[in-house]
Amino acid sequence: MNLDEYKNYKEAYVKSLSDAKTTGMKFTSVSGEPVKGLYDPDDIADINFTEDLAFPGQFPYTRGIHTNGYRGRIWTMRQFAGFGSPEDTNERFKYLLKNGQTGLSVAFDLPTLMGVDADDPLSEGEVGICGVSISSLADMEILFNEIPLAKVSTSMTINSPAAMIFAYYLAIAKKQNIGFEKLRGTLQNDILKEYIAQKEYIYPPSPSMRIITDMIEYCTAEVPQWNPVSVSGYHIREAGSTAVQELAYTLADGFAYIEACIERGMDVDSFAPRISFFFNSHLDFFEEIAKFRAARRIYARRMKEKYGAKNERSCWLRFHTQTAGCTLTAQQPENNIVRTAFQAMAAVLGGTQSLHTNSMDETLALPSEKAVKIALRTQQLLAYETGIINTVDPLGGSYYVESLTNKMEEQANKIFDEIDSLGGVIPAIESGYFQKEISDAAYQYQKELERKEKFVVGVNEFVEENEKIEIPILQVSPEVEVKQKERLAELKQSRNIGAVQNSLNEIDAAVRDGKNLMPVFITAAENYVTLGEMVNQLKVHFGAYEETVVF
Amino acid sequence: MNLDEYKNYKEAYVKSLSDAKTTGMKFTSVSGEPVKGLYDPDDIADINFTEDLAFPGQFPYTRGIHTNGYRGRIWTMRQFAGFGSPEDTNERFKYLLKNGQTGLSVAFDLPTLMGVDADDPLSEGEVGICGVSISSLADMEILFNEIPLAKVSTSMTINSPAAMIFAYYLAIAKKQNIGFEKLRGTLQNDILKEYIAQKEYIYPPSPSMRIITDMIEYCTAEVPQWNPVSVSGYHIREAGSTAVQELAYTLADGFAYIEACIERGMDVDSFAPRISFFFNSHLDFFEEIAKFRAARRIYARRMKEKYGAKNERSCWLRFHTQTAGCTLTAQQPENNIVRTAFQAMAAVLGGTQSLHTNSMDETLALPSEKAVKIALRTQQLLAYETGIINTVDPLGGSYYVESLTNKMEEQANKIFDEIDSLGGVIPAIESGYFQKEISDAAYQYQKELERKEKFVVGVNEFVEENEKIEIPILQVSPEVEVKQKERLAELKQSRNIGAVQNSLNEIDAAVRDGKNLMPVFITAAENYVTLGEMVNQLKVHFGAYEETVVF
Repeated sequence: MNLDEYKNYKEAYVKSLSDAKTTGMKFTSVSGEPVKGLYDPDDIADINFTEDLAFPGQFPYTRGIHTNGYRGRIWTMRQFAGFGSPEDTNERFKYLLKNGQTGLSVAFDLPTLMGVDADDPLSEGEVGICGVSISSLADMEILFNEIPLAKVSTSMTINSPAAMIFAYYLAIAKKQNIGFEKLRGTLQNDILKEYIAQKEYIYPPSPSMRIITDMIEYCTAEVPQWNPVSVSGYHIREAGSTAVQELAYTLADGFAYIEACIERGMDVDSFAPRISFFFNSHLDFFEEIAKFRAARRIYARRMKEKYGAKNERSCWLRFHTQTAGCTLTAQQPENNIVRTAFQAMAAVLGGTQSLHTNSMDETLALPSEKAVKIALRTQQLLAYETGIINTVDPLGGSYYVESLTNKMEEQANKIFDEIDSLGGVIPAIESGYFQKEISDAAYQYQKELERKEKFVVGVNEFVEENEKIEIPILQVSPEVEVKQKERLAELKQSRNIGAVQNSLNEIDAAVRDGKNLMPVFITAAENYVTLGEMVNQLKVHFGAYEETVVF
Repeated sequence: MNLDEYKNYKEAYVKSLSDAKTTGMKFTSVSGEPVKGLYDPDDIADINFTEDLAFPGQFPYTRGIHTNGYRGRIWTMRQFAGFGSPEDTNERFKYLLKNGQTGLSVAFDLPTLMGVDADDPLSEGEVGICGVSISSLADMEILFNEIPLAKVSTSMTINSPAAMIFAYYLAIAKKQNIGFEKLRGTLQNDILKEYIAQKEYIYPPSPSMRIITDMIEYCTAEVPQWNPVSVSGYHIREAGSTAVQELAYTLADGFAYIEACIERGMDVDSFAPRISFFFNSHLDFFEEIAKFRAARRIYARRMKEKYGAKNERSCWLRFHTQTAGCTLTAQQPENNIVRTAFQAMAAVLGGTQSLHTNSMDETLALPSEKAVKIALRTQQLLAYETGIINTVDPLGGSYYVESLTNKMEEQANKIFDEIDSLGGVIPAIESGYFQKEISDAAYQYQKELERKEKFVVGVNEFVEENEKIEIPILQVSPEVEVKQKERLAELKQSRNIGAVQNSLNEIDAAVRDGKNLMPVFITAAENYVTLGEMVNQLKVHFGAYEETVVF
């Protein structure tokens, strides 16, 4: 067939596609992007292999940051865990490590996430419910009891009060006589996505950015193996964004932190290798894989071209992935095992560095031991049985996946331009831009579900009447709150109140003098200053943030 | 980069791959095939898009037999089901149809599969245990009670006595006043793979081939929408073969049936469109996808080039897939939900026409209602939530998948040459060739498991001590055997014994005269001749097969 014949042939062929009978389903991605029935070599004709793909481990890292992919090292299996008292969570950590988990990930309760102590009236009814309750170094000591910090890597999902929680962690390392240079792990510490999506903020954007810049600066100098920020798309996606919005908003947030550090005078190659990312792995299998591949390419190109990074590690987009909690259903919870399995596979085919797989019962309660074990086994099955780790980027070259990767890069670049035209990420937050775009996307998807153009098995199709939930459900005892309050009351009796007051004064001084806040937080932690006390001391200077609501 | 630079660069790169640290795992497929760390455009440089791939729905159908893939029609969700009495199985069928299953698939018990009646001493302890017990038309009437045969498609997994069971089915259609031309479904009826792998044969190969050729001829003339043979790789794979062996042996069996029909004087385009296939979807995700794609291409090429097929439908390899029962574990049965999910996804990405997903409890017992529902939901989640049906052959173009597809085609062609050199499939069976090759492959895999180069989660890694199985287990009551014997005894009392004897005489005459056997089987069915009676009548003429054992 010559080229003309081929073109005619293809034209006729593509025309015939429009006659497809359908199932009532809309052939768009879960993000609403049109998907063609056919992808062929024409869809990737523009790709320059060496410039756009290259080999794994080579700029722009589309096919992965490591030459050997998972042949060199399997991703870190890191189940987010935390509930009840520090004792309860410490026990769960040990259970997960015994079952082959390879990294820890701490879930904090809502009071801790908001920087409120367990004895604060605001905490009532919430202590230990959605995560572990931490009010001071005393709680943190129990949480990591018998866990040698030099041997595990620890991820902590905390944002507004991340600096204080990290100070507790460092104080424990000092007690265990472990040099900070040996500590490995990640703080979420991504305040921008709190304003955009998750809404767990305390201070306004500007002082929040100062604290985070302090932390990046401190870690770069003192805790070199630690990832001080995990720039998070997860919650943006959970709030209802599309895949491209998740991709673009997250990277935009990342670039904002990088620019803040450069403005402070740091060399980009000194800190950028430790900036890490955290994405959602949602339902649409190929869209997610393309998202991860596009993310690496966009990031590498910007780091090199815009920020002048010279160290290849500054150009590596390293990311943790969590399967999409928002896609799980209370109905027929065992179906969630299957959803999570597909989402986990997409994350691995996309080249994630670490992974949390949701438990089937997470829409009903905190995960039970049984449920969390199945979720962990899902990762082990992927790594040890499916053979997908045998070669790096197995989907490389696929007409569909490569074309989707290109398209997502283009779309993300358009969104960066929009954000720039609003004056950057913080002005865009203050104008309500992100919040409105996300809520529009979520609304579209809801309409599609209502019109049955999209389906959720067990919810708008294959529904079961009078369903009984047969899986075990984890209950957090109300005793936890009582005990946590007692422990805090005892602490407040026994600690050196003069040292506490000194620490708070030192915080005041550091804020006023524009000094890096981390050293004074560590001293405060060692003096058993509570989380709430430190948070409130800063509030005196920084005030509290209130959101602009846009309709 | 110019071509020379690129070559040098790649050489250095590939060299660096050999330094990969490993996890102790062998980077081979589950079939033991080496997998490279890197696949790139060089691996598919030989592919001619229009000749080797083309568009979906275009010869050689590598990318699928339908232009619109699943956009036109989702695969048939067909759970293999059968246990206990015909009443029990009838109830399960109705349960599955109510839950959204789109086709029926009958599992028969061991006595039925071997053509032995429930009241035969050989049946003791086996009646209704592994499938439904069918000894006569009376049982079959109960099995399909209130199921309108014109509206469902029915698959029946039966081989040696397939003709008699099909005669019962046709007799029911007559009773329901449904013209045979309206019947849709599939008989497994693949005796060659019984000799090769599953060992449920009765007669020697030559008369068995005669019966099957009779059936193809009969269906071509009388039951045109029925698939008279489902050439099955499933059991070959379950017996321990590699993916390529499954592929090649199955296609070789298919070609043997086609050649037998051509020898009888049938036009290839008259019957070939109704030859169907049945494959396993095993653990190795990409190897399986490539296997399905290679199967379509090999088949299309041979049908056109060797057998002179002119009808494009004669070149379509249509196949049912079942996830791999042999990969499921009694340990931690919930892990089987995940294994099955990945295998099901591979089948769909490979373009299967219909799918059975195994239930998590199938290594422990027959599937419970709950377990079979989760398995069915797995298919619905794939179809309705993951977006993988939005485009046809989404992996088309992938360096790895295309290169693997090519390699499997080459390897299969080599095996065809080997079989030819032994004189064809039947001589190869008689010499023990297939049996030895499969057992060698199974032995290799066992050794790899022992050496921990391959892993089975929960079996040779991530093992749990003192595990308690917490899922419900289906028990078949010993009452079933008692009742089935009673029903058969009553039938033997009440039926017209003269008509029975006449039917048996007609069978004798048809065998001797070389007439098509189907019409006399149907009359015998209508006269309530039992399965065992028909099977034994043929044995007088055909004798029984005994296997050559090769060490």
